[in-house]
Amino acid sequence: MIRYTRVIPSHLQTVKESLITIAEFDRIAAEKLPFAKMMGLQLESVDHGRVLMRAHYNDAFLRPGGTVSGPVMMTLADAAMYALVLSHIGPVELAVTTQLSINFLRKPAPGDIIAEASLLKLGKRLAVGEVSLYSDGELTDDHCVAHVTTTYSIPPER
Amino acid sequence: MIRYTRVIPSHLQTVKESLITIAEFDRIAAEKLPFAKMMGLQLESVDHGRVLMRAHYNDAFLRPGGTVSGPVMMTLADAAMYALVLSHIGPVELAVTTQLSINFLRKPAPGDIIAEASLLKLGKRLAVGEVSLYSDGELTDDHCVAHVTTTYSIPPER
Amino acid sequence: MIRYTRVIPSHLQTVKESLITIAEFDRIAAEKLPFAKMMGLQLESVDHGRVLMRAHYNDAFLRPGGTVSGPVMMTLADAAMYALVLSHIGPVELAVTTQLSINFLRKPAPGDIIAEASLLKLGKRLAVGEVSLYSDGELTDDHCVAHVTTTYSIPPER
Amino acid sequence: MIRYTRVIPSHLQTVKESLITIAEFDRIAAEKLPFAKMMGLQLESVDHGRVLMRAHYNDAFLRPGGTVSGPVMMTLADAAMYALVLSHIGPVELAVTTQLSINFLRKPAPGDIIAEASLLKLGKRLAVGEVSLYSDGELTDDHCVAHVTTTYSIPPER
Repeated sequence: MIRYTRVIPSHLQTVKESLITIAEFDRIAAEKLPFAKMMGLQLESVDHGRVLMRAHYNDAFLRPGGTVSGPVMMTLADAAMYALVLSHIGPVELAVTTQLSINFLRKPAPGDIIAEASLLKLGKRLAVGEVSLYSDGELTDDHCVAHVTTTYSIPPER
Repeated sequence: MIRYTRVIPSHLQTVKESLITIAEFDRIAAEKLPFAKMMGLQLESVDHGRVLMRAHYNDAFLRPGGTVSGPVMMTLADAAMYALVLSHIGPVELAVTTQLSINFLRKPAPGDIIAEASLLKLGKRLAVGEVSLYSDGELTDDHCVAHVTTTYSIPPER
Repeated sequence: MIRYTRVIPSHLQTVKESLITIAEFDRIAAEKLPFAKMMGLQLESVDHGRVLMRAHYNDAFLRPGGTVSGPVMMTLADAAMYALVLSHIGPVELAVTTQLSINFLRKPAPGDIIAEASLLKLGKRLAVGEVSLYSDGELTDDHCVAHVTTTYSIPPER
Repeated sequence: MIRYTRVIPSHLQTVKESLITIAEFDRIAAEKLPFAKMMGLQLESVDHGRVLMRAHYNDAFLRPGGTVSGPVMMTLADAAMYALVLSHIGPVELAVTTQLSINFLRKPAPGDIIAEASLLKLGKRLAVGEVSLYSDGELTDDHCVAHVTTTYSIPPER
């Protein structure tokens, strides 16, 4: 169970509906994000400025020590933020990451990884967000396996 | 009003009381953190793995554009995390920052800045935390002026 | 042509030889880093505290806009730093990333990506490094496509 | 001795002269950056896309352990990057930091701290730079006390 413990900021409440549906994102991912498929990424919900995305586990996720590798988590976080940005600005595919910073907190056991992404700021040119990653079934702060902050650049010509 | 919307993680709930009082931190700051005084920093609360710290405004905070400068915010965030780490490990003064990453989100008008620090992870060797900074009187997510993640190294010889 | 313009720091010059060979790293990667194979990663050189690693291009690297996706670059940078850390401490497979921060600077055209990793600090518990990523054939500062700083934790029980 | 070991990137070589002089920056700092004076910051050189700035030591720099505190280093790095950005775009005072990430590498003994700032990218909207900090008299890679990457937003209305 994801806990929606944070109050939705008022500027996000005005986004009554996501500007992109799960089906629309799936289509973009299928056509133009080959990595999303390779990594088993699946957008689970996009609502009120919050995105949940899952990375379906496969053994290619592993690294020495028998835990899920860092690149899986970075890829999932980046894709979750991409979906979140599109949910606010619509299907502007050319939005691009300019910066990403990740802290690895706990070693995730083999299994699905869940990303919960939320916005810190939505500006005209930059969107800044926060992504928490969890092992499936342990979606609590004390089982957060990694924490990400990331910035997307929003193209001017939309 | 600070909103305590996040559930306190269970590993932090076990810390029944902070291992350092406000008075003890004030003494360390007065004796060994000359910057804290120069910046008008004041620890307002330390409880259940959460710290509130204030930077009392003075005109030296300003930068071009009439807003509070970035260094004020970085200094406040670093000191708030220091207090938070000490609240968990006791007055281990030699705990040191190893990494700090800050996103500046909104330009704060002249006035006090408040930091709310919480832990993402407390390990044996590293503590990772998150600090949100607000302009006083606007302590809501959509008025968050800066967001920080930072890591402290905990000395082994304690 | 990679430009070795930086003077090798004296503490790295004392590492006369890498503590891991390309063949040894390849074996670890083949057995325990399935992502390395999936991403076409290849360690090209490891010497005097400097690593060059290549990501062999395939169309799965692409993202909207026809450029190489961010996750490819993050994965390559993380693996290059892993090789660099092992070159200094030997085949300690359980060394793990604790933090990674990346700035995406320019959009790489489809093609191989090269990572050049070097150490900023080698401590007993933490290794901090810097990784510059280039499009193959354009290995100059003004064609740097991304810049990474990252920290590895070195296990105590080695 | 600062070592100019890096080749000046070609896009920076086209900046034949800095668009701001030391005297002009000093005037901005004196009038609008009260922190620069409080911290004893002094721009020492600005040339070919490279800035050297000094923080003149005073005892207020200290933190427990008898070393220079992190906020001093963050403030110096931010100001050095500000000077570097102005050297490229002219005296556009409203350029602001959007992101700063610092790794603290070694504990600097009491004394002046020197920042060497260089650009990783100069775009229309964002400038990304790298700042290395040294204890005065030990300006070599193996005495680098902190490493910073930071992004400035360039205002559109200039």
